[in-house]
Amino acid sequence: MKKRYRNGEIWDFEHEIGELGNREVILGLDGGTTSTVCICMPIFPFSDPFPDPLPVLARAVAGCSNHNSVGETAARETLEQVMADALLKSGSNRSAVRAVCLSVSGVNHSTDELRVLNWLREIFPTHVKLYVQNDAVAALSSGTMGKLHGCVLIAGTGTIAFGFTEDGRQARAAGAGPVLGDWGSGYGIAAQALTAIVRAYDGRGPVTILSSNILQTLGLSSPDELIGWTYADPSWARIAALVPVVVSCAEAGDRVAHEILQDSVEELALSVKAVVQRLGLCGEDGKASFPLVMVGGVLEANKRWDIGKEVVNHISKSYPGVLPIHPKVEPAVGAALLGWNFLMTESHKEACKR
Amino acid sequence: MKKRYRNGEIWDFEHEIGELGNREVILGLDGGTTSTVCICMPIFPFSDPFPDPLPVLARAVAGCSNHNSVGETAARETLEQVMADALLKSGSNRSAVRAVCLSVSGVNHSTDELRVLNWLREIFPTHVKLYVQNDAVAALSSGTMGKLHGCVLIAGTGTIAFGFTEDGRQARAAGAGPVLGDWGSGYGIAAQALTAIVRAYDGRGPVTILSSNILQTLGLSSPDELIGWTYADPSWARIAALVPVVVSCAEAGDRVAHEILQDSVEELALSVKAVVQRLGLCGEDGKASFPLVMVGGVLEANKRWDIGKEVVNHISKSYPGVLPIHPKVEPAVGAALLGWNFLMTESHKEACKR
Repeated sequence: MKKRYRNGEIWDFEHEIGELGNREVILGLDGGTTSTVCICMPIFPFSDPFPDPLPVLARAVAGCSNHNSVGETAARETLEQVMADALLKSGSNRSAVRAVCLSVSGVNHSTDELRVLNWLREIFPTHVKLYVQNDAVAALSSGTMGKLHGCVLIAGTGTIAFGFTEDGRQARAAGAGPVLGDWGSGYGIAAQALTAIVRAYDGRGPVTILSSNILQTLGLSSPDELIGWTYADPSWARIAALVPVVVSCAEAGDRVAHEILQDSVEELALSVKAVVQRLGLCGEDGKASFPLVMVGGVLEANKRWDIGKEVVNHISKSYPGVLPIHPKVEPAVGAALLGWNFLMTESHKEACKR
Repeated sequence: MKKRYRNGEIWDFEHEIGELGNREVILGLDGGTTSTVCICMPIFPFSDPFPDPLPVLARAVAGCSNHNSVGETAARETLEQVMADALLKSGSNRSAVRAVCLSVSGVNHSTDELRVLNWLREIFPTHVKLYVQNDAVAALSSGTMGKLHGCVLIAGTGTIAFGFTEDGRQARAAGAGPVLGDWGSGYGIAAQALTAIVRAYDGRGPVTILSSNILQTLGLSSPDELIGWTYADPSWARIAALVPVVVSCAEAGDRVAHEILQDSVEELALSVKAVVQRLGLCGEDGKASFPLVMVGGVLEANKRWDIGKEVVNHISKSYPGVLPIHPKVEPAVGAALLGWNFLMTESHKEACKR
């Protein structure tokens, strides 16, 4: 591997960019456990609603930037490279950057936040505004178009509910992984389905068409072989990939599959309700409206048995003001919009001071 | 590491053993995932009950002999070494061995059984009787004193129920690991307790003293730190070690801990009932008596809140003939007794033919 020097080779392209490269831009980053996306967006004047389509100058993609997964050095290099790529593609220099909003998984404490801020500070001059957030924030923002208000429910391989109030309070529920009870997640649903097969086989549970359908999908001939298959690879995503089979079994009328999905709905709704309750997003009378941004394969790819729709139905029984939103832009764009919002707010405050 | 040659250096001691080394013996082995125990027992004449204490000439201990965990070569070497050690300690030659009964984890199919039989066949001459069984068999046998009849419930880090009928049928339930629903196991109980802490913390579940008691045990200051602790090490045993804390919380009247143990009781009882039902151990009227051998930390180390006792109470509601047994000898002795029983049965059959 070519050795990279910070602020060295990565930024060589800047010498070759002309006047246009100083048009002011914002970088929005979404750093997940599988990939990192960086969006370069021009500063555009306030309008309500936002221009449609949104002005996006460039998009760059790199690998994982979760420091828990790949270590600090690799995470930092990935972030720097993907920002340089986005700027290069957009024909911009670093001097054109007004703000960077980085929403990255693995940022759970202020110490994580500070570390990432320090990395960014070494790359960008002091006048550049830097914002570092958990990756759930970009997901929320992709639905609220940059406003930090409401709740986001993410349900893919894992699940988490994250909420924000306009006065800056935040709360989360779930997101602790499969050992610690993220039962509504894609992994949770699929693990329950595999368990149901074993239980039907050894006489602890009812017969279910999950057995034939999942074994066929996996190319296995007997439930005995499920044990070997399950523990051959510790990847949660590999198990979560079975969710569509569970959904199709439930759609075909299988009671066991139906109950697994129903449990998942209750778990996911419970996460959202815990966040809404703690933040008072529903107002004092419990009826105020609040956005619920819904993200992730479990909430999206449904047909007749629609997990996302059922979750909203469930929540609305307690909180009738819930306003479900399925984002139309990706989380990195959400991060850029959030950066834009932060910048506008700060400019406004500074203007008021003068 | 010193290179060993099969049937070579390991058996060098045999040249130095005198006449006494030809007194007939049986080897009983219990091969688990953490250690392997070999017992050398003399052939003793039939008596009912067995002599107390049982005649044991020697006991040897070695590491893991589960081929799924350590690979074939290491598993085979461990087995050979532990048998040689037991024979050396008892002052016996291989020519003194009448039978070897090996009960080893990871033997789930006839192909596994055949492979281990072939290893043994290379070590011992053809007149030596060889018996290879799953490790649950030694556990059952340690309670029934060598009889393959009844059900064994093992609940330590993992859990499995295994049953046998006198006419040779067998059935199992659970034993598929934590992903596949072994919820009544020590790991299952402790993982539920950790989950309860997270749920109480983020507002999804009721307050519980599990939070303070478990965090204190682990030296953590906040439930936030549980996520890092949980995923820092994939060992199931490390999590299962928290069971005594859950039991003490339940004994102190904590409702959440009580419910976790109650769920565990129902799960463990369900495993036994599934096996009893499939094998008809309870007879046609459901009231016949059958032994239930209970093994493992979850069923043993209880005080006021006694999981094992509750499991038996639960089972006896469906099957009043259940006869709980807490073994007084270790599984390797159970394996040796099983070998002794097999040998006596075969001798009897051969005598009848003549």
